Amino acid sequence: MSLIEKLQWRYATKKMDPAKAVSQDKVEKILEAIRLTASSSGLLPYEVLVITNKEIRDKIKPIANGQSQIVDCSHLLVFAAWDNYTAERINDAFDMTETIRNFTSDAGTAYRQMLLKVYPARDSEINFTHAAKQAYIGLGTALVAAAEEQVDSTPMEGFDPQALDTLLNLKEKGLRSVVMLPLGYRKTDEDWLLNLKKVRRAKESFIRWIK
Amino acid sequence: MSLIEKLQWRYATKKMDPAKAVSQDKVEKILEAIRLTASSSGLLPYEVLVITNKEIRDKIKPIANGQSQIVDCSHLLVFAAWDNYTAERINDAFDMTETIRNFTSDAGTAYRQMLLKVYPARDSEINFTHAAKQAYIGLGTALVAAAEEQVDSTPMEGFDPQALDTLLNLKEKGLRSVVMLPLGYRKTDEDWLLNLKKVRRAKESFIRWIK
Repeated sequence: MSLIEKLQWRYATKKMDPAKAVSQDKVEKILEAIRLTASSSGLLPYEVLVITNKEIRDKIKPIANGQSQIVDCSHLLVFAAWDNYTAERINDAFDMTETIRNFTSDAGTAYRQMLLKVYPARDSEINFTHAAKQAYIGLGTALVAAAEEQVDSTPMEGFDPQALDTLLNLKEKGLRSVVMLPLGYRKTDEDWLLNLKKVRRAKESFIRWIK
Repeated sequence: MSLIEKLQWRYATKKMDPAKAVSQDKVEKILEAIRLTASSSGLLPYEVLVITNKEIRDKIKPIANGQSQIVDCSHLLVFAAWDNYTAERINDAFDMTETIRNFTSDAGTAYRQMLLKVYPARDSEINFTHAAKQAYIGLGTALVAAAEEQVDSTPMEGFDPQALDTLLNLKEKGLRSVVMLPLGYRKTDEDWLLNLKKVRRAKESFIRWIK
C-alpha cells in the first residue's frame, strides 16, 4: 500500500471494537514515529500519554462529549503540550543535544542564547500555543504511522481540556492537553462513517501554484 | 524502508542543491498526501501555496532570515491558514460533503448548525490559531510524504509572516501564512547538519504510560 492508499484507507473511526486490542509492538512503532518527527528547534515540547487504564478512560468519556472511542479503543493517546517555554526546558534540550553529539559550536550557542532571550520572556499563552502546534505535527505523523500498521485512529479535539488536565494532574507537570487520538480497530457493522465517501476540498481550490 | 527508517532518514535539510529539482510527479504525491490528511470537522481550513517562481523566492529569502533553502529548493510550500471561520466557509464545506456523498442526516445538519453558531462568533484570532493547528497536521503528513519519495524538506517557522502575507497578497484571500516547507535535495558536501546524530528526547521522558 502506498502512502496515498494508506491515507485513503484511514478515516476518523466513529465506532471501535472493544474486543480488539492493538498489539504492544504496533503501539510502540506509532509512538516512535511521533518521537522521531520534526518539531521547532528540535525541542519536542509536548508529551504523549498512553492511557490503557479502563477506570480513567471511563472518567474521560463524559468530558469528551461521551465519544465511545475513548473506552472502545485499546490505547488512548493524549498529546499534552508544555504550558510554557522555560529556561530550564530550553537548556535541558540543548544540553542533551550537545552531550549526544559531543559537539558544540558558536552558532549552536548563539541559537540557544537567542531562544533563552526570546521564549521565556513571551506570554505563556503564546508559548503554549506554539508548543501545541508542534504536537499537531506529531498528530499528523501518528495518523500516518497508525495507517501504516493498519490500526484505526480518531483525532479528537472535542473535549474539555481543563477538565482533562485536572483529571490527569497535568498542571503540576507543566502540561496542558491539546488533542487526543484513540487507537483501536473499526467495528465495521456499527460505524456509520465507514462506507461514506471521503470528502476533501478539490485540489484546484486547496493548492495554489505560483510559477 | 519502513516508516521509522524514513523518519530517521529525514532531517531539516540546511543546504539544498540548487541544481536538482524535485519531479512534478513527486510534488503531486506530497500535495495529495496533505490534501488527504485529517483536519478538524474535515474543513481543511488552509491552502498550500507551491512557489517555483524564482523572483518571488528571491524576495522571500530576506524575510526568512536569509535561509538559503528558500532559493535552493525547487518547490517552496507555504501553508496559509484561513484568517477566520466564516459562515460561508463552513457552509461551503458542508454543502460539498452533502453533494459528494448524496447524503444528509439530522446529525450532520445539527453539527453544521453547531459550528455555524460557535465558530463565526468567536474571536478571529482564536479561529485562525485553530486553523493554523490543522495546517500543522498537514505539515506532519507532508514530512512523511516527502521522506516516502526520498525528497528532502525543511520545516520553517523562522520568517516574518506579516511581510510574507503582504508579498503574496494573502490578506485579500483571507489567508495568513503559518509555516513553510522547501522541497529539494540535500547538498551533501555543504550541509553541516547532515552527519550530526539525530537527537530526540528519550522515550522515557516523552511517553507517559497510564496503565
